[in-house]
Amino acid sequence: MKLTILGCYAATPRTFTNPTSQVLEINNHLFLIDCGEGTQVELRRNKIKFSRIKHIFISHLHGDHCFGLVGLISTFRLLNRESELHVYGPKGIKEIITLQLKLSKSWTNYPLLFHELDSKSPELLFEDEKVSVETIPLDHRIYTNGFLFKEKPGPRKLLINEIMKYNIDVSLYQSVKMGKDVESNDGEIIPNHLVTGPPAKPMSYAFCSDTAYYPEMISQIKNTSILYHESTFLEVNRELAAPTKHSTAIQAALIAKEANVGKLILGHFSTRYPNIQLFKEEALSEFSNVELADDGKIFTF
Amino acid sequence: MKLTILGCYAATPRTFTNPTSQVLEINNHLFLIDCGEGTQVELRRNKIKFSRIKHIFISHLHGDHCFGLVGLISTFRLLNRESELHVYGPKGIKEIITLQLKLSKSWTNYPLLFHELDSKSPELLFEDEKVSVETIPLDHRIYTNGFLFKEKPGPRKLLINEIMKYNIDVSLYQSVKMGKDVESNDGEIIPNHLVTGPPAKPMSYAFCSDTAYYPEMISQIKNTSILYHESTFLEVNRELAAPTKHSTAIQAALIAKEANVGKLILGHFSTRYPNIQLFKEEALSEFSNVELADDGKIFTF
Repeated sequence: MKLTILGCYAATPRTFTNPTSQVLEINNHLFLIDCGEGTQVELRRNKIKFSRIKHIFISHLHGDHCFGLVGLISTFRLLNRESELHVYGPKGIKEIITLQLKLSKSWTNYPLLFHELDSKSPELLFEDEKVSVETIPLDHRIYTNGFLFKEKPGPRKLLINEIMKYNIDVSLYQSVKMGKDVESNDGEIIPNHLVTGPPAKPMSYAFCSDTAYYPEMISQIKNTSILYHESTFLEVNRELAAPTKHSTAIQAALIAKEANVGKLILGHFSTRYPNIQLFKEEALSEFSNVELADDGKIFTF
Repeated sequence: MKLTILGCYAATPRTFTNPTSQVLEINNHLFLIDCGEGTQVELRRNKIKFSRIKHIFISHLHGDHCFGLVGLISTFRLLNRESELHVYGPKGIKEIITLQLKLSKSWTNYPLLFHELDSKSPELLFEDEKVSVETIPLDHRIYTNGFLFKEKPGPRKLLINEIMKYNIDVSLYQSVKMGKDVESNDGEIIPNHLVTGPPAKPMSYAFCSDTAYYPEMISQIKNTSILYHESTFLEVNRELAAPTKHSTAIQAALIAKEANVGKLILGHFSTRYPNIQLFKEEALSEFSNVELADDGKIFTF
């Protein structure tokens, strides 16, 4: 699992900071999460192949999370994209995009499929044999979802030294990895647990931005490997968090602790702070495994 | 008159090139012309004070000329702007912006005034005692206007050596500059032309992008000081110009020659060309005073 942060600052694009956008690579999928102004340039800067993006997830319709979407969709057209593009986002997103394509007489030459969201409960958005994506309802000034990306358990691990003890045809190994008992060439039934170990623990990633402190999300993201949680404010400005429905670094850390996640990544920093290290320091008072997002930073898990 | 090129490349923003946007400073006005994605960042990079922008002119609704507008309007709100903002652009621009402000529940806290255009004849958009702005109808795939910015003639120049020959009260000089004859303290009527010279020649700037080769514009821009004309293609790709309703460098130069402008600035280069110097070379075959726009370049006239 690889996470590339294209932008992680709040409110407005600036000379050296970008609004929210990130790319999650998981089981050969490249999922784009949020798409603030300038995202297509950051994709180029990070050498991410446009054609590999087939699913875009938009958390909410504040500009710093979606104003780059129409430009990216248009650029796909200019690059003669042919494959489907799926856009998941709040109700209204289709009207925003199609109005602009209509008025510029620039319909896409590829299938552009909108999946509009308005449920306040978690919804399954995407699923294949290896990965699922669902919404995480959040608490912000307008309708907002986070997204939970989950690997499914893979095949069991073959214990090569064990299986070699039996006279088992190699063509049956695939079925053994799927958990089946197996008959050896000697007619003996070998119980699966003798020749396999449990599969690698599936990874999961929860993207939670923007949101006020919202403990209701905890049950859904319990034990998630990685939690990206917004932390717009430091303690010195904690009084701004509730009215703007944002979180402080400490509030993000409390969510991480209660949800027992593996690692917390902080982002969506207000540009008022010249030193983002303070976000980490404050969060560490409540949760031990904290990292800071930053534009262009890559995490591999 | 000072022209700052924020972006002058066609189609899509890239790592080192920006779509169309420029700032014209003329008689203390700061006019923003077009607003491709990333314009607000380029304004910051060029240290242009956001609060001085009161009028934004949008040529047409293709994304590379307007996708940065909603973000800029939103940033003005976040910066607590109070003064009016006037946006001039094709019919539909108001719906595009207001739909996004509505869905993000982010109405501006300053007066945002749209002036929607659909006339195919030149229209006066703005006028004060020193400057006027009018549309230049162009020929593109969708409804498109260029813009003609004209200084009005200033006061006549006092010929100090001449006026000192007469016994004229200094308090009357202002009226002399306005072209009036004047009575000396000796009771003599002094004809204005004896003590003044003609005012400085008013400057004018014509922005013409995007457009096919369109000689119909020539009468309107005749003798303009500076013409910015798009030149998307070089001769090697001249067959692409007509169907896409763009111009070649030579076609831009032919317009400049026929219109007898003072200087031609070329821009809106297709990003397919690694060397934009060729645009200048080709244009020079038809017109002698040619300069190339480039992102971040500043022209003072």
